[in-house]
Amino acid sequence: MLIVQKYGGSSVADPDRIRRVARRVVNLRREGNDVVVVVSAMGDTTDDLIELVKRIAANPPDREMDMLLSTGEQISIALLAMAIHAMGEKVISLTGPQAGIITNDVHTKARITDIQAERLRGELDAGKIAIVAGFQGLNSNNDITTLGRGGSDTTAVALAAGLRADMCEIYTDVDGVYTTDPRLAPEARKLASISYDEMLELAHLGAGVLHPRAVECAKIHGIPLHVRSSFNQEPGTIVEEVNRMEKDMVVTGVAHDLNVAKIGIFDVPDIPGVAYRIFKTLADNSVNVDDIVQSSMRDGVNNISFTVAQSDIRRALTLVEEKILADVKAGGYTHELEVAKVSIVGAGMVTNPGVAALMFEALAEENINLVMITTSDIKISVIIKHEDGVRAVQALHRKFNLAGEPA
Amino acid sequence: MLIVQKYGGSSVADPDRIRRVARRVVNLRREGNDVVVVVSAMGDTTDDLIELVKRIAANPPDREMDMLLSTGEQISIALLAMAIHAMGEKVISLTGPQAGIITNDVHTKARITDIQAERLRGELDAGKIAIVAGFQGLNSNNDITTLGRGGSDTTAVALAAGLRADMCEIYTDVDGVYTTDPRLAPEARKLASISYDEMLELAHLGAGVLHPRAVECAKIHGIPLHVRSSFNQEPGTIVEEVNRMEKDMVVTGVAHDLNVAKIGIFDVPDIPGVAYRIFKTLADNSVNVDDIVQSSMRDGVNNISFTVAQSDIRRALTLVEEKILADVKAGGYTHELEVAKVSIVGAGMVTNPGVAALMFEALAEENINLVMITTSDIKISVIIKHEDGVRAVQALHRKFNLAGEPA
Repeated sequence: MLIVQKYGGSSVADPDRIRRVARRVVNLRREGNDVVVVVSAMGDTTDDLIELVKRIAANPPDREMDMLLSTGEQISIALLAMAIHAMGEKVISLTGPQAGIITNDVHTKARITDIQAERLRGELDAGKIAIVAGFQGLNSNNDITTLGRGGSDTTAVALAAGLRADMCEIYTDVDGVYTTDPRLAPEARKLASISYDEMLELAHLGAGVLHPRAVECAKIHGIPLHVRSSFNQEPGTIVEEVNRMEKDMVVTGVAHDLNVAKIGIFDVPDIPGVAYRIFKTLADNSVNVDDIVQSSMRDGVNNISFTVAQSDIRRALTLVEEKILADVKAGGYTHELEVAKVSIVGAGMVTNPGVAALMFEALAEENINLVMITTSDIKISVIIKHEDGVRAVQALHRKFNLAGEPA
Repeated sequence: MLIVQKYGGSSVADPDRIRRVARRVVNLRREGNDVVVVVSAMGDTTDDLIELVKRIAANPPDREMDMLLSTGEQISIALLAMAIHAMGEKVISLTGPQAGIITNDVHTKARITDIQAERLRGELDAGKIAIVAGFQGLNSNNDITTLGRGGSDTTAVALAAGLRADMCEIYTDVDGVYTTDPRLAPEARKLASISYDEMLELAHLGAGVLHPRAVECAKIHGIPLHVRSSFNQEPGTIVEEVNRMEKDMVVTGVAHDLNVAKIGIFDVPDIPGVAYRIFKTLADNSVNVDDIVQSSMRDGVNNISFTVAQSDIRRALTLVEEKILADVKAGGYTHELEVAKVSIVGAGMVTNPGVAALMFEALAEENINLVMITTSDIKISVIIKHEDGVRAVQALHRKFNLAGEPA
């Protein structure tokens, strides 16, 4: 088998952990597998480098940020290769550029456009374990780029696709994908498998185990992902194409995000281009908008509500007050600095019309008021008061019987 | 003018110093010059990385050491480029590979074989200051190599040669090249200029300001070097082709190395191949031999003496006892664990037969006994007792009147 493994920064945070990862890689190799290992920067390396930058330049060029931050992974791959070499296996480290990770030119958030895997394949054919720097690639100027958030997961999946690997294992500090956050609901159960689409929704909804980009890439190329812990040998959760319609389990998991803020703009003229102007202004000023809901209250005017991360709310409010209200001739706005978003996810949902009602019942039983509702084919999200968040997660987990064994 | 500058690790050890270097570079640019800047790794970065390695592998592959250590300079170039960008100048950082530093395949001590300066020239033509990582290059496998000791100086000189620069400035933590070590002889005088050959001898003799490799490369390509301090604006010492025969100053400087040990092998059969066998054994076991002296005491047998660094003496003695004595059928050996090497250097020496006598007179006046003597066209070295070292430097500096103004 050809297996691509990815280890995050906490898995290689110090020499002891690096040796532990090396031992795991060597064992897999000695079972007769070809192994490609993608690693992130050690623990706090990236943060330390960013601290240095703050003392030098307020607004550094993105290209130079990539030049700087890509050193973090380069340190990890060299050290891991040394640890594996010390255990007697043939091994070589490769930077993203050396591994043939070709990207577009957008520094600090480049997207992978091609995998030129000739060298990597050659090293594997020569019997070596290949250690590849995650998070980085090479653009058409021969410059180092970085992939932005979720970059190392995406490197691993893209390499797995480029090499037609049998499996891509993503090692993290959790055991796998749970029906909900075990810190909020101790009865949460680890899922043995989950579909790409469900995982995508969970990833978008803040489950945090995998980045949506990586899941998307795995789905497109049909690469099975195994999400598991680097601190034990337990199997984790397999992300793959699953036909959920033949199962009783309609809802797969409950996700939450407690760091949400909400803005509502009311009495917006009901004419074309209004939404464009609002969200263009926010995007141009780097405010990331999450959910958007528009509804008509009375003739000729609309209400538009949206959520942002709490870290963006001050900037968003300034833009609304100083620019957007006048721009779109709105009547005014409301905001809530701290709300929670709780979602249920399940591929079987689309064929089960009663799921939404069941969800709202659970929340009503807890006397939880709904501020906003948004839905997609495989998830339903509600925005509720911040202090209701944890209780909502627990109630939904119970209502959909997620702690029980799957049928 | 096209000027290549090189700043060592202590000059970029922290954000304040990086900004100070940036200010210097920007000033030079604003005077209308094209500027290429070569930098080393910040202060202790390299040592910190080596510490990490020690906790992971006893005998790491050289290729992986290069992969690891080359990150140090990559961090420096990105940070310096950010600092210069923040001052409003166009700037780009380039790794050794990006700057076209092509080397042979000998990891950890590669030699530069070619400079492919197309990209660097293009960036200069586009009006940018170019910041290049010292100490590193690219070999024919597309792997990162490092140049070993003196690497960053050599990078700077090689780039100056490849770009046909007008001047190569080497910034260090000293003001320039002195007639001797000012810590030993406070009356030591900074030289305004010195010839390549004299600088080469001084570099080999432990003067420490410049690495012999860099001086050699500058001599071959006729690149004038300006050795100066990054902590002030004073002119330093220019290393260039100088015709010393028209000057009165026969001796340019006094060099010393107090960390020397000496081994003498006596009654060695006077047959071909003996020296080869002795020094091959030492070289194969990584003992660096400095001076070698052979003399005949009586018919048919020779004495061979040599010096090594004190850090190598234990290993050297073990090799002599366990292998070399039997190998060459020698009568026995003597050794001195701590001796000093003191040398006078001057291009005019070859035409002044009295110089050696004057040197020995100075040492005799101080009642200093000579253990070994070696000479070249432009230097005379003596090995003396360790405790006589400092006194010898001071006596020679006085005897050759080096503190006085040059004629």
